[in-house]
Amino acid sequence: MTAFLDWLAELHVDTALELAGVFFAALSGGLAGVRKSFDAFGVLVLAWATGLGGGVIRDVLIGATPPVGIANWRFVSTALVAGIVIFFLHPSVERMRRTVIVLDAWALAFFVLLGTTKGLALGAGPLAAIMVGVLTGIGGGILRDILVDEVPLVLADRQLYAIPAFLGAIVTVLLWWQGWLALWSQALVVLLVSGIRLVSLRRGWVLPA
Amino acid sequence: MTAFLDWLAELHVDTALELAGVFFAALSGGLAGVRKSFDAFGVLVLAWATGLGGGVIRDVLIGATPPVGIANWRFVSTALVAGIVIFFLHPSVERMRRTVIVLDAWALAFFVLLGTTKGLALGAGPLAAIMVGVLTGIGGGILRDILVDEVPLVLADRQLYAIPAFLGAIVTVLLWWQGWLALWSQALVVLLVSGIRLVSLRRGWVLPA
Amino acid sequence: MTAFLDWLAELHVDTALELAGVFFAALSGGLAGVRKSFDAFGVLVLAWATGLGGGVIRDVLIGATPPVGIANWRFVSTALVAGIVIFFLHPSVERMRRTVIVLDAWALAFFVLLGTTKGLALGAGPLAAIMVGVLTGIGGGILRDILVDEVPLVLADRQLYAIPAFLGAIVTVLLWWQGWLALWSQALVVLLVSGIRLVSLRRGWVLPA
Repeated sequence: MTAFLDWLAELHVDTALELAGVFFAALSGGLAGVRKSFDAFGVLVLAWATGLGGGVIRDVLIGATPPVGIANWRFVSTALVAGIVIFFLHPSVERMRRTVIVLDAWALAFFVLLGTTKGLALGAGPLAAIMVGVLTGIGGGILRDILVDEVPLVLADRQLYAIPAFLGAIVTVLLWWQGWLALWSQALVVLLVSGIRLVSLRRGWVLPA
Repeated sequence: MTAFLDWLAELHVDTALELAGVFFAALSGGLAGVRKSFDAFGVLVLAWATGLGGGVIRDVLIGATPPVGIANWRFVSTALVAGIVIFFLHPSVERMRRTVIVLDAWALAFFVLLGTTKGLALGAGPLAAIMVGVLTGIGGGILRDILVDEVPLVLADRQLYAIPAFLGAIVTVLLWWQGWLALWSQALVVLLVSGIRLVSLRRGWVLPA
Repeated sequence: MTAFLDWLAELHVDTALELAGVFFAALSGGLAGVRKSFDAFGVLVLAWATGLGGGVIRDVLIGATPPVGIANWRFVSTALVAGIVIFFLHPSVERMRRTVIVLDAWALAFFVLLGTTKGLALGAGPLAAIMVGVLTGIGGGILRDILVDEVPLVLADRQLYAIPAFLGAIVTVLLWWQGWLALWSQALVVLLVSGIRLVSLRRGWVLPA
């Protein structure tokens, strides 16, 4: 019974949530492509790079090749569906700007948690796990901005985006170190990262520049 | 006798054709460098990155390190010779614009065929093989455009460039799956990819944007 | 006694010098971030990417994952300290422009020597070792310029920067081939690379464009 619940928790919830994270991140990528008047293929590439690029960077850095971002059907097709959705429905998505920000905060949190955990599971040390966890969260957006020939937003817009990512990755490593990495503690990490992100936006907390 | 013909076909024809593909792709890279007033070293780097960058990305993604693009003398020197040629003779090459486009279509086809096949040979699944095959074909051009600080042409110019690459990679995987990957079928893949590319240019077929 | 001296030479001098190289390269990265009005996190990322990016590219290309640039505390913290220093003290560092150029020439030399040697030690062939040695030296600066959305300086500014890097990498491979790679010959490589760089600057030697 426990094994079954574990299986359910791991396979269904985790995978569904991770794919949802890929989908929302890919939406933001496709949108950047539409805004730059990319063609249909360019919009799909932007969606793919933004939704899965962080994970591809992570997998290359920890030697987990080929990366899931090019090898896993569910991941690749999720990103491409997001690209198709944004290509046809981008005016509607633009109107849901507030919703997109909330979903993106949540995707960031999930990417950091899973990226750090994958680093640890594959034998990376604590520092490397933190670095790849953060890169999983912010790497896709950096790739997106390089591909549309802009300065990466996460480096210049003063918002608290990478800071909660780092905090989340550090807390994940500490939990794993203590043997406390479980469903409840992972939920806390997700709340922590997305919470800081969203509260800082509402309160207007910014980094010095 | 058959073994000898196989050896001849594989070593001489394949290698010569692949090096020719590297050469023509590298020409386009060097030309982009010349147009941006890069110095002699910059032109060589652009030639190298455009001619071999797609293969380097492929090899990193499938774990075939060090990539042939930095380890194989014939490949590296072919790209550098193209860079030197373009540095001294770029006005002549510019005048052969039509020829360059035809040769580039052919190089794209060859890169996709060989990139997909290498992915399969090194144990990547069908999806990963398709992805690295396409990246072998279009990755060098994307690197070129990032290095000259432009939006990647392949994402924005609406031409059918990546679409024939995807078709070629998919057909290559299907042929391999059926055990039909031979010299004649590889020639068909090359004809398919370069044919769609060139016909679409002549007919003005474009992607929606 | 000899073993002790070896240990001292290798651990203290080498590591201290390499960390110093990372520090000075990271300063130049952080400075580029400050000039582009990046926020505090962006300045740290630029410092990290410029100080350690070349080594990360090298390690990915030779399959030495996870790269020291994300896994080694001393390296990562050195780059981050440089980022913090530049964030608070950039006016003073800007005034020391001449000193920064000298230190950077020296960091280039050291990166090329150590990058080439690491390539050889991990079984890369001579060509691949030269390529990753040069990329260790110039890769961080290229990453920096891509992240601040500029054309890579090293490709366009006509200065002799990559040329001494190539010479140093080639000499390192030749010394290693002959079994002459020792402390004295490594010092000569460093003098050669930084010397050509600095003399060419003073004499105004430039590449054709």
